[in-house]
Amino acid sequence: MLTPENNQTEIMHRESDYTPPRSLSHWMIGRPLSTADAPHQTIGKAVGLAVFASDALSSTAYATQEILGVLAAAGTLAFGYVFPISIAIVVLLAIVTISYQQTIHAYSGGGGAYIVSRDNLGELPAQMAGAALLTDYILTVAVSVSSGVAQIVSAYPAMDPYRVEIAIGAVILIMLVNLRGVKESGAAFAVPTYFFIVMMLITVGIGLIRGLSGSLGTVIDPPSQAIMHNVSGITAFLILHAFANGTTALTGVEAISNGITAFNEPRSRNAGITLIWMSVILGSLFLGISHLTGQIGAVFSEEETIISQLARTVFDGRGLPYLATIWGTTVILIMAANTAFADFPRLGALAASDGFLPRQLTFRGSRLVYSNGIITLSIIASLLIIAFKASVTLLIPLYAIGVFLSFTLSQFGMARRWLKIGRLKDGEEIVERGSVLRFDGKWKSKMLVNGFGAFCTLVVMFVFAITKFREGAWFVLILTPVLVMIFFTIHRHYKGLARSLSLEDFSGNPTRQTRHRVIMPISGVHQGTMDALRYARLLSDDVTVVHISLDAAETEKVQKKWITWGEGTRLVILDSPYRLFIEPLLEYLQVVIANRQSNETITVVVPQFIPSKRWHNLLHMQTANVLRSELLNKHGVVVTDVPYHVHESIHSHEGHKE
Amino acid sequence: MLTPENNQTEIMHRESDYTPPRSLSHWMIGRPLSTADAPHQTIGKAVGLAVFASDALSSTAYATQEILGVLAAAGTLAFGYVFPISIAIVVLLAIVTISYQQTIHAYSGGGGAYIVSRDNLGELPAQMAGAALLTDYILTVAVSVSSGVAQIVSAYPAMDPYRVEIAIGAVILIMLVNLRGVKESGAAFAVPTYFFIVMMLITVGIGLIRGLSGSLGTVIDPPSQAIMHNVSGITAFLILHAFANGTTALTGVEAISNGITAFNEPRSRNAGITLIWMSVILGSLFLGISHLTGQIGAVFSEEETIISQLARTVFDGRGLPYLATIWGTTVILIMAANTAFADFPRLGALAASDGFLPRQLTFRGSRLVYSNGIITLSIIASLLIIAFKASVTLLIPLYAIGVFLSFTLSQFGMARRWLKIGRLKDGEEIVERGSVLRFDGKWKSKMLVNGFGAFCTLVVMFVFAITKFREGAWFVLILTPVLVMIFFTIHRHYKGLARSLSLEDFSGNPTRQTRHRVIMPISGVHQGTMDALRYARLLSDDVTVVHISLDAAETEKVQKKWITWGEGTRLVILDSPYRLFIEPLLEYLQVVIANRQSNETITVVVPQFIPSKRWHNLLHMQTANVLRSELLNKHGVVVTDVPYHVHESIHSHEGHKE
Repeated sequence: MLTPENNQTEIMHRESDYTPPRSLSHWMIGRPLSTADAPHQTIGKAVGLAVFASDALSSTAYATQEILGVLAAAGTLAFGYVFPISIAIVVLLAIVTISYQQTIHAYSGGGGAYIVSRDNLGELPAQMAGAALLTDYILTVAVSVSSGVAQIVSAYPAMDPYRVEIAIGAVILIMLVNLRGVKESGAAFAVPTYFFIVMMLITVGIGLIRGLSGSLGTVIDPPSQAIMHNVSGITAFLILHAFANGTTALTGVEAISNGITAFNEPRSRNAGITLIWMSVILGSLFLGISHLTGQIGAVFSEEETIISQLARTVFDGRGLPYLATIWGTTVILIMAANTAFADFPRLGALAASDGFLPRQLTFRGSRLVYSNGIITLSIIASLLIIAFKASVTLLIPLYAIGVFLSFTLSQFGMARRWLKIGRLKDGEEIVERGSVLRFDGKWKSKMLVNGFGAFCTLVVMFVFAITKFREGAWFVLILTPVLVMIFFTIHRHYKGLARSLSLEDFSGNPTRQTRHRVIMPISGVHQGTMDALRYARLLSDDVTVVHISLDAAETEKVQKKWITWGEGTRLVILDSPYRLFIEPLLEYLQVVIANRQSNETITVVVPQFIPSKRWHNLLHMQTANVLRSELLNKHGVVVTDVPYHVHESIHSHEGHKE
Repeated sequence: MLTPENNQTEIMHRESDYTPPRSLSHWMIGRPLSTADAPHQTIGKAVGLAVFASDALSSTAYATQEILGVLAAAGTLAFGYVFPISIAIVVLLAIVTISYQQTIHAYSGGGGAYIVSRDNLGELPAQMAGAALLTDYILTVAVSVSSGVAQIVSAYPAMDPYRVEIAIGAVILIMLVNLRGVKESGAAFAVPTYFFIVMMLITVGIGLIRGLSGSLGTVIDPPSQAIMHNVSGITAFLILHAFANGTTALTGVEAISNGITAFNEPRSRNAGITLIWMSVILGSLFLGISHLTGQIGAVFSEEETIISQLARTVFDGRGLPYLATIWGTTVILIMAANTAFADFPRLGALAASDGFLPRQLTFRGSRLVYSNGIITLSIIASLLIIAFKASVTLLIPLYAIGVFLSFTLSQFGMARRWLKIGRLKDGEEIVERGSVLRFDGKWKSKMLVNGFGAFCTLVVMFVFAITKFREGAWFVLILTPVLVMIFFTIHRHYKGLARSLSLEDFSGNPTRQTRHRVIMPISGVHQGTMDALRYARLLSDDVTVVHISLDAAETEKVQKKWITWGEGTRLVILDSPYRLFIEPLLEYLQVVIANRQSNETITVVVPQFIPSKRWHNLLHMQTANVLRSELLNKHGVVVTDVPYHVHESIHSHEGHKE
């Protein structure tokens, strides 16, 4: 056995001065960023609100509408329940916000449901949270973009046939913005987010004032309603179903806790304040819209959104203020998808670095963003949009279950954490699974807050699963465990690989092998073959050249030439009656491998023609490539490609002249 | 310099006992045939007529119709010209047949226009003939299949919307039959060809008898006519245009001369007799149909073919005899494409073996047929059918120019050949360009026959080019020279390649290289790396291991592990600030290559992970593959893949135990 020669190892560092050349992608996503540029890419509270809150805020554009959509089954009378349901949802929002404040302060390094579950509940709950969140991020993109398109169609009914095309175009746009990197997308998104907030505050504000002064009428010329036959009475199931649809307003609240690391220092404080701002704005707008919806007698319709009906009633027609509101809503909805584009790749990279998703997701592209995650998200969301024809109402039953599952897991995790902290002594600090538990005198009340939050969201999740089961929730209920299974299968693969490649029980390389046998398949005898032969003979004296005989006349020629040029090397001719090339060669190698000596290494040298122009490949059979991939799957052989380039053959031919 | 060691070369023959396993393709195209099975695959006169005449005979199904289509522009009165035009075409047929008899007897080894032009006129005319014929074979498939579908639609108008789908289905069917091989397709095609001939003879025969006895009426309820407004007078141009369309009847006459080798011995005699049979049947049917068309007052229409109008008039309605005629015509048309499927791949392989088309076309598949040619033809013909919506009238302007160009070249070639033979003395025999010229006393009259034939077809070709120019002939007039240029470009590539690989002026391999430098890129240190390192050290003592640093922490780990496990091998760390892997490595290699000693060979050893399951590839970045293809394009390095398989590592580990 060889003992490691510890002190003789020579290690050299070399700074690569390679700078990527300018290309089309520079123009599309910006110049490449060096890894050293990374730490500067954080954002302040105002930009943070724009980046992370657009998802949550934009849900006001469809939450009320989807409550109405369910109640419509029981006729106009049921519309009176919209406001009470909305109040219940805002109460839930408050509970979740308070509970998440604690998480953000406990996890300044990023406290998404995945991390909190992993640290406090274990691998399985963590992967459940991961699966749930990844699914919901995809749905966020599909639902937000579809709702954005619905706003456009409300204002411009002529666009109706192009819903899907517009939606896909929007997804591609967001993808490109995100491939540029978070800072620039933050700046790009700040203006429209604030424009939306201002426009909605104006709309709701004027609506409320006009409502109080009695000058607010009802919707003139309301859109035709899809479902308006009294198919159902006002049952508890109906109310709960409407409530479940409305809680989509809460989606996106968790975004900030996942993205704490994107904030400037002090991260937790900045993120926490941003969360409160966001919840207050969200709650106010949602309540205002729900209240006004009832007052103006807006109806559920696929043709015109509630926002459109509200804006044209408040502003007396489709003037400039109306268009500003619609465009503000559209743009924020389409950009809300951006929240998912910030979080999906980050969570994907996190799960991938834990070995539960393909490692490619951890790769940061030229602009320091997780390009593979961004592209994956774009593709799946686009497919969903196509499958569901960009309809919010068709997508909504699948939505939000995942979010509430992750809310529940995250808060239970926090509650469990406080319980552990309760066992610590004053001032004590322990590290468990990489996270620091620090004594906290208020652990009991904090545990209650998180525990109560978890309980509430768990109940809501069951309400979801039951009331939306038949419409599509069943799919998510099957998909989530399937995804978790896939994650664990991937994990097993990586773990098994690491174990069998580990050097822990490795006894070092055995003594040098003394014999080296070289096999070289050839199709003809020419300068390329001679180059390869020269290389083969450099490797070993034991060279066997193999020619597969497809054509008797050709074989005759090869034999004759070999006598002249073969330098005495052994030539084996394999007759192939079925004109196959690869199979007889593999069969021959099988025999060679079976007869191998224990101290022998076998190398297959493949002469490969590399044409000077790429299109020339069309004029040659790609046997070398097929052969290589077959050989690599074979145990016990090493494959060497000796390329021959026309006009310039491989080794230094200057060597001749000496 | 090394001198070839002539007498020590050891050559071994080994019969591969590999037999292809059963697979789906067996069921589709039959069990693989051994090369030894080849000579038996020839056919007799009766089967030969079925295989090679279906193209020519089936053109009676559309030739008359396309004459009528042109004359329709001048109103019904012009229909009287159909029969005189048809007589002119039959005279042309006779001239071409007599001329080709001489070719078949002079070229028993296959005397297609390509070979005759190549032997007697030179490379350029040969490639012109090749381009023209290949183009026309493709059009034969598209036109015949489209006309076949038109017959079906005449009988079953409900099928009209599915013209393209039916046509594509037919192409796929013919492709599969042809992938089985010529003998079996001959047998499959004999019955329907003879059924067609019999049905047409009955239809035309009864029609003529009823015509003479005065009991033949006119077409009842004729189809609506597309073009029936007197847009044009009866001009010479119109008559010539109609004549040009009618000469499509001659397409396929050359098929037998291309396929002489497929006949049983004595080939020339059998092929010649078959050609006469074919021309007689073709001429009679064509004249009969043209005559009856006028008598029953059939009209041109895209809705119902002339054959359908004729058959239902002769047989008094759409009874069983009518349906038998229609189905007979349909099947022979769809099978007529088979002639092209026999000739296109054969000509393609011939041109490819001369180095004017990609060599892959010379490859005979498991059933001894030129599979690549068959598949290429199917794909291009299908695209044409889709582009031209399976309409014969849209396709016809492109058709037949190529055939007449090849007729002309072939016959001029023959005329030139007789001229050379005229210079020989009695009994003399010379070999020129691989073909044998033998003294022939009747050379003068034979030269006149071929020369006159060439002159006639040349004139017809000009008539084509002028009268059909605007409708689509311009495309063929551009395409043919473009194809010829492509052929010569391919030829230049192969010739250049052969020249630079030639061993003619090769001075043998230079003295053995004495230095061997090995570079090995690694991404981590594990058992796979150790296996690769062991191999690298087997190759040379001069091993440099290169690690591209994408992540500082990872690099730290690699460095530490290398000190323990690196066996004193030099480690170079390349910092890659833009997180690129390939580019910095290539740049480093560039430096290594630039500093290479003249007696030094450089090998890059790439450790490549080969997962045990194919889907595992999705979980790994395919850096090794990308790296290899980049390195192979780099001059001056040899690339070695050392695969590592999990659970079983490369070299014989039994070696340890010793």
